Amino acid sequence: MLLKRFSLLLLSVIFSVHVFGQQPKYIFYLIGDGMGLNQVNLAEIHQAELKGVNGTAPLVFTQFPYVGFASTNSLSHGVTDSGAGGTALAVGKKTKNGVIGMDSTGTIAYKSIAYAAKAKGMKVGITTSVSIDHATPASFYANQAHRDMYYEIGKDIIKSNFDFFAGSGFLKPNTSFDKKEMPALVPQLEKAGYKIVKGKVAFEKEKNKGQRMILMNIDGTDASSLKFSIDQEAGDFKLADITQAAITSLSTNNNKGFFLMVEGGKIDWSAHANDAATTIQEVLDFNESVKLAYEFYLKYPKETLIVVTADHETGGLGIGNGSSTLNTKVLAHQKVSQGGLSAKIGELRKSNPNASWDEVKKLLGDNLGLWSVLKVSEKAEAPIYEAYKKSFIDHHNETEKSLYASDDKIATLSIELLNKLGTIAWSSKNHSAAYVPVYAIGQGAETFHQKLDNTDIPKKIAEVAGFDF
Amino acid sequence: MLLKRFSLLLLSVIFSVHVFGQQPKYIFYLIGDGMGLNQVNLAEIHQAELKGVNGTAPLVFTQFPYVGFASTNSLSHGVTDSGAGGTALAVGKKTKNGVIGMDSTGTIAYKSIAYAAKAKGMKVGITTSVSIDHATPASFYANQAHRDMYYEIGKDIIKSNFDFFAGSGFLKPNTSFDKKEMPALVPQLEKAGYKIVKGKVAFEKEKNKGQRMILMNIDGTDASSLKFSIDQEAGDFKLADITQAAITSLSTNNNKGFFLMVEGGKIDWSAHANDAATTIQEVLDFNESVKLAYEFYLKYPKETLIVVTADHETGGLGIGNGSSTLNTKVLAHQKVSQGGLSAKIGELRKSNPNASWDEVKKLLGDNLGLWSVLKVSEKAEAPIYEAYKKSFIDHHNETEKSLYASDDKIATLSIELLNKLGTIAWSSKNHSAAYVPVYAIGQGAETFHQKLDNTDIPKKIAEVAGFDF
Repeated sequence: MLLKRFSLLLLSVIFSVHVFGQQPKYIFYLIGDGMGLNQVNLAEIHQAELKGVNGTAPLVFTQFPYVGFASTNSLSHGVTDSGAGGTALAVGKKTKNGVIGMDSTGTIAYKSIAYAAKAKGMKVGITTSVSIDHATPASFYANQAHRDMYYEIGKDIIKSNFDFFAGSGFLKPNTSFDKKEMPALVPQLEKAGYKIVKGKVAFEKEKNKGQRMILMNIDGTDASSLKFSIDQEAGDFKLADITQAAITSLSTNNNKGFFLMVEGGKIDWSAHANDAATTIQEVLDFNESVKLAYEFYLKYPKETLIVVTADHETGGLGIGNGSSTLNTKVLAHQKVSQGGLSAKIGELRKSNPNASWDEVKKLLGDNLGLWSVLKVSEKAEAPIYEAYKKSFIDHHNETEKSLYASDDKIATLSIELLNKLGTIAWSSKNHSAAYVPVYAIGQGAETFHQKLDNTDIPKKIAEVAGFDF
Repeated sequence: MLLKRFSLLLLSVIFSVHVFGQQPKYIFYLIGDGMGLNQVNLAEIHQAELKGVNGTAPLVFTQFPYVGFASTNSLSHGVTDSGAGGTALAVGKKTKNGVIGMDSTGTIAYKSIAYAAKAKGMKVGITTSVSIDHATPASFYANQAHRDMYYEIGKDIIKSNFDFFAGSGFLKPNTSFDKKEMPALVPQLEKAGYKIVKGKVAFEKEKNKGQRMILMNIDGTDASSLKFSIDQEAGDFKLADITQAAITSLSTNNNKGFFLMVEGGKIDWSAHANDAATTIQEVLDFNESVKLAYEFYLKYPKETLIVVTADHETGGLGIGNGSSTLNTKVLAHQKVSQGGLSAKIGELRKSNPNASWDEVKKLLGDNLGLWSVLKVSEKAEAPIYEAYKKSFIDHHNETEKSLYASDDKIATLSIELLNKLGTIAWSSKNHSAAYVPVYAIGQGAETFHQKLDNTDIPKKIAEVAGFDF
């Protein structure tokens, strides 16, 4: 009888809370491209090992109170690309690999959750550490039949009317998909009311004006992406700078709330290269952006929802390669990304085309710790020496191609060896079908506790936010 | 004002529900040994592919309303073994790899959640598809310094006073760890009040007597484990038979509830062998036991808690090995486990020591679909032919050793090829540090929504069940 009364009471309260339940006013949707569960786990394990602890040093988002995981297959493939993966996370529908925000035939445009947020009166920010027209950010504002339609994707910014965009730059600001010379994109964006701002210093001058903005890296830098975290120097433009700028910009003169998507875009790139040390630093770099969102949540806990997830796993990363003893701490000897190391080897080849094996070994020691700190067996040395011989003695320059990089063979073999010494194994240089993790905190976070499909994630956010989606 | 009133109301109801909150009376704790997230994911993907669907065909437990994942490192190693892993899940404390229910020095015994359940008056069942004295089940009732102390572990059944044990048998029922001949274990167990029951038919006669019982496989079968699901024939003793027997036995003449641990022990074994088809069938076999628990839950939803998890991942399984197209359906051509295939090759060698390459290919075709259904390139054929030549022409018998099997090289190479054709990649033949999944349904399940450590899992169960733990 008592229980029955309580049940009734509970029911009525649940009903009331549902009706009166607060909807999040500030929504952060952070996506680690290629960030499978093992990428996160490895970053936690590596950080713990560096502190001398056998276990995990938690990241900000791994401590969120609600977690889960989601399957990621696209409509066309068991293993998704970032086009269909981003589209699933943005519009809540499956599509064919390669498509951005449309059905598989590329004829029907799907409405993303960012448009739903905008329709509710929120400001919207779409940001990334790669180019603004890349697949994941594009999925939130563009509708194009193919992810490589960079110019056409960029133009969709105008129709979006969103408030803040940021990334490294634009990949094809003057050339259409069919390779025609086109009217420059940037002046068109300016004409549509976007202030173009380049770099942190310029942003500081523009930040309090409450204006629509496209924030990019400064002139002379790589338009395709920000530097890998492991390669960055003081003052370099970082994803956390972008995230902070987005929060500042979207908060100014705004009492209707905001929806902010932040992509850590290069976790995927380093995982494609099977470069674990760089991948760990990219996950930690992404975590810095989550930290900014979390600090915002601490100020407005009842009004903020943070969801962290990924579009797919990349590389089939395995933690452990036979022994029960992990040794990921040796990865900390790596000072540059695989691409950075390739460039250094290229510079040496230019300045000293007949560099000795000892000189090359010194370069590898300085940048990876091989030989200098870490013992390298004769057997392990042999293939790297062979690559050296071909390149510096026979003068055939060999490269190894992954999706985003064409790297010197000496670099790829050396990093492969360091990964092996670091007890890391990779299954492939492509994406895998592994589940992606989901983490949530704040208003509405309690809805994230089941095994999901990637398409469920934006639907759940839209539901708790009361979006028409 | 209104919101404040509702908040107060809600608080008081939460408090009341907490105080009056029902504790689960029936607790199922199901552990897939070696069942990482990808093992589950692969079983779901494979089942979907067989139905012609690109996506996932959910298992019973993947649809549970609460999910999460847990880190698994042991006190001594980044990668746990099943001793420390089972101990963490049983007693909620980390220990050294190899130890069962004790501290790292093997001097302090830890109390498992099964003892806590028993102390609360519940009946307790400990069951597995491998031997009853194996690491995972042992962690729940034994306290021994090393997992290989099989005789000593078996004797700990007596002190446990638990109600139901089941598995394939005992590994060392007559020999101590220091290799001394000992008084036979089974009569001691009988003397302590356990009815020894062998096989399904015998169980049917004993099932309604409400007696303490040890259920094993029939005489003449392998004491170390039940057959792999893929190798079973009609009538063979299965994990689901054991689970059903446990539920029946623990339910008889019992109004105090029960705690039942069920281990799917051989997911790990097939993953050690990097044998994906057998692993999938083991996960599905484990799912059949979860299904029985779920059916029980449907009868007593308010009194039942089911938690499904794993002790560690095995093999560093990757789904996808380069292409975006998965092709796991070809794994369905495999009709026997790697061990079963080895045995068949051994029989052929015995009956026909000079069998031709065509005869061996036919055997591989019949059992794996290679050549008979699946095209095998010359390059892929070469290493298998080499192994054939060594074995059937030069008469050197080569074997490949994994933790639980010493298999014919022709078998391991052929299954390696089938896995490759099935777009499956393995990182190692050992465990990995990957997170394990956690799934929960029923009374108290809502506590499982965070990223956990494996030691948190029994603590959370004990908390919702009101155990002194």
